Amino acid sequence: MPSALILMADGTEEMEFTIPYDTFVRAGISCTSAFVPAPDTDGSEPHAVSPPFCKGSRGINIQPDTYLEKHKCGPEHFDLLVIPGGAKGAETLSQSPVVQELVRDYLDHDKFVGMICAGSLAALTSKLPKQQLTSHPSVRAQLENDFEYSEDSVVVSGKLVTRSLHSSRGPGTAFPFAFTLVELLCGTDKRQEVRSPMVFPLSTPF
Amino acid sequence: MPSALILMADGTEEMEFTIPYDTFVRAGISCTSAFVPAPDTDGSEPHAVSPPFCKGSRGINIQPDTYLEKHKCGPEHFDLLVIPGGAKGAETLSQSPVVQELVRDYLDHDKFVGMICAGSLAALTSKLPKQQLTSHPSVRAQLENDFEYSEDSVVVSGKLVTRSLHSSRGPGTAFPFAFTLVELLCGTDKRQEVRSPMVFPLSTPF
Ligand SMILES: [Cu+]
Repeated sequence: MPSALILMADGTEEMEFTIPYDTFVRAGISCTSAFVPAPDTDGSEPHAVSPPFCKGSRGINIQPDTYLEKHKCGPEHFDLLVIPGGAKGAETLSQSPVVQELVRDYLDHDKFVGMICAGSLAALTSKLPKQQLTSHPSVRAQLENDFEYSEDSVVVSGKLVTRSLHSSRGPGTAFPFAFTLVELLCGTDKRQEVRSPMVFPLSTPF
Repeated sequence: MPSALILMADGTEEMEFTIPYDTFVRAGISCTSAFVPAPDTDGSEPHAVSPPFCKGSRGINIQPDTYLEKHKCGPEHFDLLVIPGGAKGAETLSQSPVVQELVRDYLDHDKFVGMICAGSLAALTSKLPKQQLTSHPSVRAQLENDFEYSEDSVVVSGKLVTRSLHSSRGPGTAFPFAFTLVELLCGTDKRQEVRSPMVFPLSTPF
C-alpha cells in the first residue's frame, strides 16, 4: 500500500489539501497530514507545542494527523510528499528548513514530491536543479528564472522516477494533479477506478 | 453580503464540504458550518455535547464553526442551506428531524437549498413535492419514484426563486454546483470573478 505525507500550515488552501488527500484515500494510498507551525512573529523558532488545528486560507479548520518531525516524516516512511498552496501556507511551508530538507531527501531517494499552486515555491527554496515546473500565476515571476516554467496544468518533470517533481496551477487543477499522482503510484487502472465514481461532467478534460 | 449554512456530520464527503465552503468564501458569501451528531447507536437522542470535530468520509477531521441548533440556523439567519454527500454523513443529515424541518423552512421562505451527491436524500426525507433533481447514482433508486430524476450535473428546479432546490451528482461536480449557487446568490459577474483565478484546464465544461 503506497503512502503519502501531505503538509499543511495556517493559510493552506483547503481544496488543495482536501482534494489530493481524499482522492489518494479513495485510491488506497495511506495518507498522513502533518502540520508545520509558522515561525514566531519575532523571528524565533516555531512553537514547540502546535495548535490543535490548522486554520485554512478560507477559514476551514482542519485537524492534522500529526506534526512535522523530521525523523518521522522522511522518505523511508512515505512514498510521496505533497505541498499544497494557499499564499500564507505555502510561504510557511517553503520557508521551513525541515521542509526544504525533506523535499531534497525525497527526490534523492527516488520518492515523489507533489507541489500545487504556490506550493511550487518550495522547489526554489529547496534549491532544486533547473527543471520543468508550473505554479499558480501569482508566483510565476519568482520561479521563471530558476526553472523551465510551463503553462501546463500538471507537469511531470523529466526524470520522472528518479527525480519526480509535480506541480499544479491552482485549485481548478487539483483533481488532475491528484489523478496523475494516483496513476504514478498505483497505475492507470487505479486512476480510472477512482475517477469514475466521482461522476465528472461529460467532456471534462482530465 | 449573502450567507450560507453548510451542514456536516461524521462521514460527510470532505471535498463536497470543502469545495462549496471555500468557493463561497471566495465569492464573498459568509459561510458557517454546523455539525449534526448521529443518533446514538441504541436509537436514543443524539449526544447533547458534540465531538470537537467532524470525521469526514476519508478520515479528514474538520472543526465545525457551530453545532446545529434550530433557532440559530433558520432561514431568517442564512440565504442558503447546503447538505453535502458522503454515504454515512448524508444518512445522518437526511434522517435528522431538525434538518428536515430546516429544508422545508428555507424553501417556504424562498431561500436556497443546495444538496450534493447522496445529500439529495434529504429531499425525500423532508417530503418535498415532486420536482426535478439529481444525485449520486448510488441513491438514484431511492429517489426516482418521488422526483423527476435528471442526469444533468447540476439541476436547478423549476420554481427557481420561489422554491429553489439544487442537487449535484458527486465530488466531480462540486465545482459547477458551487459556481451555480454563487451565480444565483451573487450574479454572473461574481461567478466569473471567482472561477477565473482558480485556473481550470482549458475546455473544462463549467
Ligand atoms: Cu492556490
